[in-house]
Amino acid sequence: MFESSRLFLFNLKQNKIFEFFVITVIIVSALEIGAKTYDLSEGTLLFTKYLDVFITLFFLIEISIRFLAEEKKADFFKSGWNIFDTIVVIISLIPVNESETALLARLVRIFRVLRMVSIIPELRILINSLLQALPRLGYVVLLMFIIFYIYAAIGSFLFHDINSVLWGNIAISMLTLFRVMTFEDWTDIQYETMEVYPMSWLFYMTFIFFTAFAFLNMVIGIVVGVMDEEMHKERLKSEPSMSELQAQIQGLEKQIQILIERESNKQPDK
Amino acid sequence: MFESSRLFLFNLKQNKIFEFFVITVIIVSALEIGAKTYDLSEGTLLFTKYLDVFITLFFLIEISIRFLAEEKKADFFKSGWNIFDTIVVIISLIPVNESETALLARLVRIFRVLRMVSIIPELRILINSLLQALPRLGYVVLLMFIIFYIYAAIGSFLFHDINSVLWGNIAISMLTLFRVMTFEDWTDIQYETMEVYPMSWLFYMTFIFFTAFAFLNMVIGIVVGVMDEEMHKERLKSEPSMSELQAQIQGLEKQIQILIERESNKQPDK
Amino acid sequence: MFESSRLFLFNLKQNKIFEFFVITVIIVSALEIGAKTYDLSEGTLLFTKYLDVFITLFFLIEISIRFLAEEKKADFFKSGWNIFDTIVVIISLIPVNESETALLARLVRIFRVLRMVSIIPELRILINSLLQALPRLGYVVLLMFIIFYIYAAIGSFLFHDINSVLWGNIAISMLTLFRVMTFEDWTDIQYETMEVYPMSWLFYMTFIFFTAFAFLNMVIGIVVGVMDEEMHKERLKSEPSMSELQAQIQGLEKQIQILIERESNKQPDK
Amino acid sequence: MFESSRLFLFNLKQNKIFEFFVITVIIVSALEIGAKTYDLSEGTLLFTKYLDVFITLFFLIEISIRFLAEEKKADFFKSGWNIFDTIVVIISLIPVNESETALLARLVRIFRVLRMVSIIPELRILINSLLQALPRLGYVVLLMFIIFYIYAAIGSFLFHDINSVLWGNIAISMLTLFRVMTFEDWTDIQYETMEVYPMSWLFYMTFIFFTAFAFLNMVIGIVVGVMDEEMHKERLKSEPSMSELQAQIQGLEKQIQILIERESNKQPDK
Repeated sequence: MFESSRLFLFNLKQNKIFEFFVITVIIVSALEIGAKTYDLSEGTLLFTKYLDVFITLFFLIEISIRFLAEEKKADFFKSGWNIFDTIVVIISLIPVNESETALLARLVRIFRVLRMVSIIPELRILINSLLQALPRLGYVVLLMFIIFYIYAAIGSFLFHDINSVLWGNIAISMLTLFRVMTFEDWTDIQYETMEVYPMSWLFYMTFIFFTAFAFLNMVIGIVVGVMDEEMHKERLKSEPSMSELQAQIQGLEKQIQILIERESNKQPDK
Repeated sequence: MFESSRLFLFNLKQNKIFEFFVITVIIVSALEIGAKTYDLSEGTLLFTKYLDVFITLFFLIEISIRFLAEEKKADFFKSGWNIFDTIVVIISLIPVNESETALLARLVRIFRVLRMVSIIPELRILINSLLQALPRLGYVVLLMFIIFYIYAAIGSFLFHDINSVLWGNIAISMLTLFRVMTFEDWTDIQYETMEVYPMSWLFYMTFIFFTAFAFLNMVIGIVVGVMDEEMHKERLKSEPSMSELQAQIQGLEKQIQILIERESNKQPDK
Repeated sequence: MFESSRLFLFNLKQNKIFEFFVITVIIVSALEIGAKTYDLSEGTLLFTKYLDVFITLFFLIEISIRFLAEEKKADFFKSGWNIFDTIVVIISLIPVNESETALLARLVRIFRVLRMVSIIPELRILINSLLQALPRLGYVVLLMFIIFYIYAAIGSFLFHDINSVLWGNIAISMLTLFRVMTFEDWTDIQYETMEVYPMSWLFYMTFIFFTAFAFLNMVIGIVVGVMDEEMHKERLKSEPSMSELQAQIQGLEKQIQILIERESNKQPDK
Repeated sequence: MFESSRLFLFNLKQNKIFEFFVITVIIVSALEIGAKTYDLSEGTLLFTKYLDVFITLFFLIEISIRFLAEEKKADFFKSGWNIFDTIVVIISLIPVNESETALLARLVRIFRVLRMVSIIPELRILINSLLQALPRLGYVVLLMFIIFYIYAAIGSFLFHDINSVLWGNIAISMLTLFRVMTFEDWTDIQYETMEVYPMSWLFYMTFIFFTAFAFLNMVIGIVVGVMDEEMHKERLKSEPSMSELQAQIQGLEKQIQILIERESNKQPDK
């Protein structure tokens, strides 16, 4: 009897209409979050409260169905997306009163919108491919962090007394350098320090060149990596490789060799 | 008789001089629109009024010729460009007096310049290729919208009381985030919220990283897509594929096999 | 006798030491131009005057040598670089007194630095490749101009009364839109018009999307074009094409066919 | 005995735990530099002083070990990284008192963080590849410098009297143009000069176009260069080239030719 109900839940989970209904509830949940940022009337506020309870319960039921529909319960938590969904649902269950945790609970509710990603396969693939590209960037990011750290240390030592809001300590300096990297009013910062150290434009110039160059290198690295993969995939899929052609031609050679040898054997017979 | 006049119109439509004349009128129409943005003398204003009537009539006649020259009248409206041209011409016919619709009619007249695109084949191809690239981007745009929506919701909840002009509701917040994405005075916004939430730089940093990464992914996706197509096209056009070469080599193998078999049959004969 | 002196001049022109000396004079000329932007003492000013006369004369002599060294004098003006050099030298000869043409003559002298490009072959190749890439971009630039023109016309009509400094006429509006495209304080412009037309953010958003998309398309177009050329070149240079391999394999097939036919002819003989 | 101790040091240098310990000390050294940018208590300051002595001594010992472990002492200074490490260590040994050299000594200490790059092989490879890409860019950088120089000279001549802070001399003008290239408040500069020279927007527009175009060209050049190399490498590694296939097919042809000739020789025998 358990098995038959599991199969029922599995079929329900796979059902297109059910999936469509889940997406609808997620969208409603997203719209509700958006609506709450406006000044609402008393009645609408009460309505969103009931809507909230409904959405919370619906998500609880939906994740229960997906959990119960799984053949091996342990497999359920092997998928990162399932773990993410479960955490979002569980935290939603924490009762929200006017205490200080209300803000936190509200923020968690916003992450429900991310369930859109976990339910639409195309978005899930997109996120996975983004995550796969990350490790490839690991060392470039480390190098960029070292550049930031060194320049922030120099900036703190030299410019600390000029403007402590921008160069007060190494953490603030790194934030200021990130601002310089985005070209956001960076000349204001530069002109300020150039009054004390006239050569400090060298500091900004070299920093911009190093980070731009490292960033460029990163982008090119990804492009080349992605294209290599694409080419490799294509080659594997549809076309025989050069080596296969070579092997076949070598096969031909051996057979012709056999022919020539036989001919040679015949000749002396004559 | 109808057919012969249709053919006359068709030849007129295909005529290079006629086409050149149409482009000239479109350019004159564009220049007139530009000239109207300057303060003009009474006389010139009167002249532009007569010019306007002439252009409107000319476009009406031109589209009539193109419609009548069509063999099957229904085919005419199968082309999106023809529909676009017809709508622009029809709306131009609405009489413009000093009422409030004057502004709208004026705006529609500006879209006449877009007829430049519909008349020059190279621009039409360019626009078509741009439109074809759009669906490929569908899911990346959806993902970017989700990122914007979540960050706008968080921004509204946290920063609403700090600056309601920038973070008043979710729509305004999304506009503010678009501003942050273009790096436009984003540090002013950041410093303002950092006074209340010192860790809010994390909000901006992560947002910039996510959107930049998604944007990068989009660009790379297009580049790879376009290059794949180009390579595929080139391969189809001029060169035999690897598989064709393989098939030919296999043909050779069979023939040599026949030779070897015949030799083998001869041998025992001896 | 004329021919022998032509050969002498030709050898002089080709001489590495002479070329090095020309480059040195160009660099000195560039440094002199840079030095003049500083406040100089009377003595130095006098020195630059004499230096100027020397450089002008040297360039006159150098271009004469290059002209006289040419076998067919008409060929000299077939190269755009020679024409450019000649114009720069001739305009330098115009006497500079303290009249209003002094500024113009001074500006022309700055273009002498561009002779650096005409004398170093690698830079000449670089500039040529840049110029070759331009026509490929022709239609994208035209499309971008149409987008700018339409948005500038709309902007002029709608925002003229809000801020005539930014939207006064279509030319000023196009300049403002170029500013928006570079993201330079574009939100200030946006907030100003949003006070009157709250939906005008749509105007800026769509403009940014269209221009960014067209720009992206342009960049991708160039990248794909350049890579296609590179691949084509490489294929032509070092490697036999697929079609050549196919032709050779077909040659093999025919020869084996001959063998099989001869065997067939022998068989009935037995 | 010397040789055995050299081997002991060599083994120590290669030891994973020793390497891990070196990296830890570098990180501690980096953190200490960062900590010094904050206001520290007397006790902590004293602690950083002792830490500093320890780090300096440790680095001295570590580089001695690496030097002594080298078989041929001259080879040690053939690696740029070793020279860099030695210089950093030696300058660290200069005693730091409250004199004016204190700042310099402090700055040198910051460069210790760069030892992170010299100790982690992946970062070393990354930096090497960045350095290898530089010469390829040589002429584009030269061209960009010429563009900057010419525009800075023009800017100095024309706008000197409008704003001497921005256009005072050619060096300041080049800095201002770099600011324009990063789109940083460039319209403020433009509006200022347009009041005197209404056509000066042409100056900025053409400058932005030229530099953007040269920059784009540079990026495309690197991408194409990197991809060419990748393709070349891949081709060399795994796959036989087209020419090899061609050679093999020609080998086949010769053998079949031999077969045909023998057949021909047999025929007349009959």
